[in-house]
Amino acid sequence: MLLVNGQLQDSVPALDRGLSYGDGLFETIRLLHGHAPLWARHMQRLAFGCERLRMPRPDAQQLWQEALQAADGLADAVLRITLTRGSGERGYALPAITQATRIVAAFPMPLMTAGAYCDGLRLHQCTTTLAEQPLLAGIKHLNRLEQVLARAEWNDPALAEGLVCDQHGRVISATAANLFAVIDGELVTPSVERCGVAGVARAELLHARPDCRVRDLPLTECLRASELFLSSSVRGILPVQAVANTVYAPGPVTRAVQRYWQGLGFPMEQA
Amino acid sequence: MLLVNGQLQDSVPALDRGLSYGDGLFETIRLLHGHAPLWARHMQRLAFGCERLRMPRPDAQQLWQEALQAADGLADAVLRITLTRGSGERGYALPAITQATRIVAAFPMPLMTAGAYCDGLRLHQCTTTLAEQPLLAGIKHLNRLEQVLARAEWNDPALAEGLVCDQHGRVISATAANLFAVIDGELVTPSVERCGVAGVARAELLHARPDCRVRDLPLTECLRASELFLSSSVRGILPVQAVANTVYAPGPVTRAVQRYWQGLGFPMEQA
Repeated sequence: MLLVNGQLQDSVPALDRGLSYGDGLFETIRLLHGHAPLWARHMQRLAFGCERLRMPRPDAQQLWQEALQAADGLADAVLRITLTRGSGERGYALPAITQATRIVAAFPMPLMTAGAYCDGLRLHQCTTTLAEQPLLAGIKHLNRLEQVLARAEWNDPALAEGLVCDQHGRVISATAANLFAVIDGELVTPSVERCGVAGVARAELLHARPDCRVRDLPLTECLRASELFLSSSVRGILPVQAVANTVYAPGPVTRAVQRYWQGLGFPMEQA
Repeated sequence: MLLVNGQLQDSVPALDRGLSYGDGLFETIRLLHGHAPLWARHMQRLAFGCERLRMPRPDAQQLWQEALQAADGLADAVLRITLTRGSGERGYALPAITQATRIVAAFPMPLMTAGAYCDGLRLHQCTTTLAEQPLLAGIKHLNRLEQVLARAEWNDPALAEGLVCDQHGRVISATAANLFAVIDGELVTPSVERCGVAGVARAELLHARPDCRVRDLPLTECLRASELFLSSSVRGILPVQAVANTVYAPGPVTRAVQRYWQGLGFPMEQA
């Protein structure tokens, strides 16, 4: 079901700045039986994005009501909340008064491939690299052509995700998930200060695992990790089985993080 | 007037990838009494963008018919043609079959401030810098948050544009126009291989002035130019009067280029 500014409708003005310039933000949220375990973190990131883009903060309570309405009848749903700067005069200048556009959509949670949580995913190694733009790094904005291009690199359904680096050969993330590695016994996740998205699942794990180091992660180092896993607020904790020809096995850190994730209320059937 | 896929309507599906990811391209085109002098170049850039983004090429003849229909009754119009990858499954992966969304909108040509063509514009010097992404450089895609942020830096209506550099202190363009400089008697325009848009007006001038050098242009060099002007397929050739506190006077090269522009059929009342 789809709500635009609280109304049951499936269209937006063709001149909305969200479409004209990608001028806005989004969140994808898992909603289980009317409960979104990471809701507060999603709203926190959305508010942070609004500050960065100089957009008015949305009313989180209103979004929650609309989320429940959109997901009506779905026991296990993926919400997509999109917030744009709305319409305005032609041109890049900010409208004198912003009338944001609010889109709340709910989809049935897709079935994960069998064994994804147990054995893990195989990853394509993307040649598309991410540009460094500290002004936009971390937030989940609507300028996602780099991710579209990276995801367009492969068609093989056996490859569930792609590993994406910046232009200096540092691993940043998957196309639609953050990444964690165990290197020399230490849990590491790449910095997202210059590019990448500061995932809500990543934020939750950094909270749960204060021993995790946030730092630059050269690809060469990543490839010799003893464990590698992805984090996604929708899909949960997914071990990485292989990046191109480099093979990994889910280890004790990955399994502990998966148990933590289940403890939050997210089912991961195979884990 | 506004056409979406050839139909008189002012809305698009809320889940269009143009809005979800900025997954598409646009052109802004000046249409004078049913004539667009640079139409062929606009169509050429659009086709090039489609190739880069792996989108099907639009039917230029169909776009032209829709442009005329949208501009009905406007003697002097700005067209905005937007082409998105349309709707698809949730997620970055390309749809199996792309059903592009085509938006053709016409606006009355805005009045230029008095003296813009004669005396020139004053420019803000933007602190927002452009990230380098060769995969997206040159094309006019819908990921324009950098331009939105750069344009949001000033409110003073006396400043008509902003000078934007890359992260290495090289001048790239204005927020919505390309830039040319005369340095040591030589006409120069910045390379747009790593960031920036390859403007249609810029392409026309490069054709008309084979003596113009395309190269990197450090800000320090740009500030000591003897002439500086902007090129825009909508606004034409605009002398730069000042960048922050650095003052310029329109010189013979700028005036020659303005005359060339008028010869193409674009009125520039004050020039």
